[in-house]
Amino acid sequence: MISVLVENKFGVLAKIAGLFSGRGFNIDSLCVGETLDPSVSRMTIVTRGDDRILEQVNKQLNRLIDVIKVQDFTEQAHVDRELVLVKVSAPAKSRAQVMEIADIFRAKIVDVCPDTLTIEVTGDQGKINALIDLLQAHDIKELVRTGRVAIARGSQPLKSLKE
Amino acid sequence: MISVLVENKFGVLAKIAGLFSGRGFNIDSLCVGETLDPSVSRMTIVTRGDDRILEQVNKQLNRLIDVIKVQDFTEQAHVDRELVLVKVSAPAKSRAQVMEIADIFRAKIVDVCPDTLTIEVTGDQGKINALIDLLQAHDIKELVRTGRVAIARGSQPLKSLKE
Repeated sequence: MISVLVENKFGVLAKIAGLFSGRGFNIDSLCVGETLDPSVSRMTIVTRGDDRILEQVNKQLNRLIDVIKVQDFTEQAHVDRELVLVKVSAPAKSRAQVMEIADIFRAKIVDVCPDTLTIEVTGDQGKINALIDLLQAHDIKELVRTGRVAIARGSQPLKSLKE
Repeated sequence: MISVLVENKFGVLAKIAGLFSGRGFNIDSLCVGETLDPSVSRMTIVTRGDDRILEQVNKQLNRLIDVIKVQDFTEQAHVDRELVLVKVSAPAKSRAQVMEIADIFRAKIVDVCPDTLTIEVTGDQGKINALIDLLQAHDIKELVRTGRVAIARGSQPLKSLKE
């Protein structure tokens, strides 16, 4: 999982996405969000692969002029979270069960219909996957995940890899 | 805000990002997350621009073979959420105030240091921006946003634009 601060300009995302796909790296999840500075965006990228190739990707990222900072979470203590919205079948006969699952996972019910409930939950991967597994028994109608973001533990921001 | 279901393959993200940047469309926020089907990812894109040009982008997206479905949230009732992690200065003299703000916004404290607190919050844009405005008076050290995701209200999935 890496975090990249980039200039908020046309084409930066395309350049970075191209850098990954050009090396045959698939991106498992990606978040691009605003920062306090409107000219800067933060990208959080989750990818898998050989350490040596990942190091190459890191170096290439640092060479892009639109990249301000690259941070790697792999070896640093961090808080890892994802937001998921899930619409699940919940007719009268199973509604109490679905609500009980939501309650156990401290999930919020954000929309109610006669035969479905829409649930919002945040957590780390273990929690999210456990909840989805349980809800699959009740027929998931739609699932929307933000992808993972992270923030370093401690009072300091994450160490930058950019020299 | 549009949601695009795509094949989870190398290069799809680069293609879609290129489609936006080639038309001078900036992407305000983007989430790419897994779905229940490991071969399919969902992209949620927030962009601004002329209706006519947006319609063109929609058409172009639908023409890409890796695009399975395009959904537009603009005219449909939906639940809109974002997850934010924020590390804020909180020395002894202002800690109670920061915790009170977190409490009012039903935010969770996910990490504690002698001089900082790290807060997790989810909500719509109004809530997130109001919280960030309040915390800025306390010196925000780091801010990580997932970007927005949405799910249609009601029991039906969102209407697809793809013919």
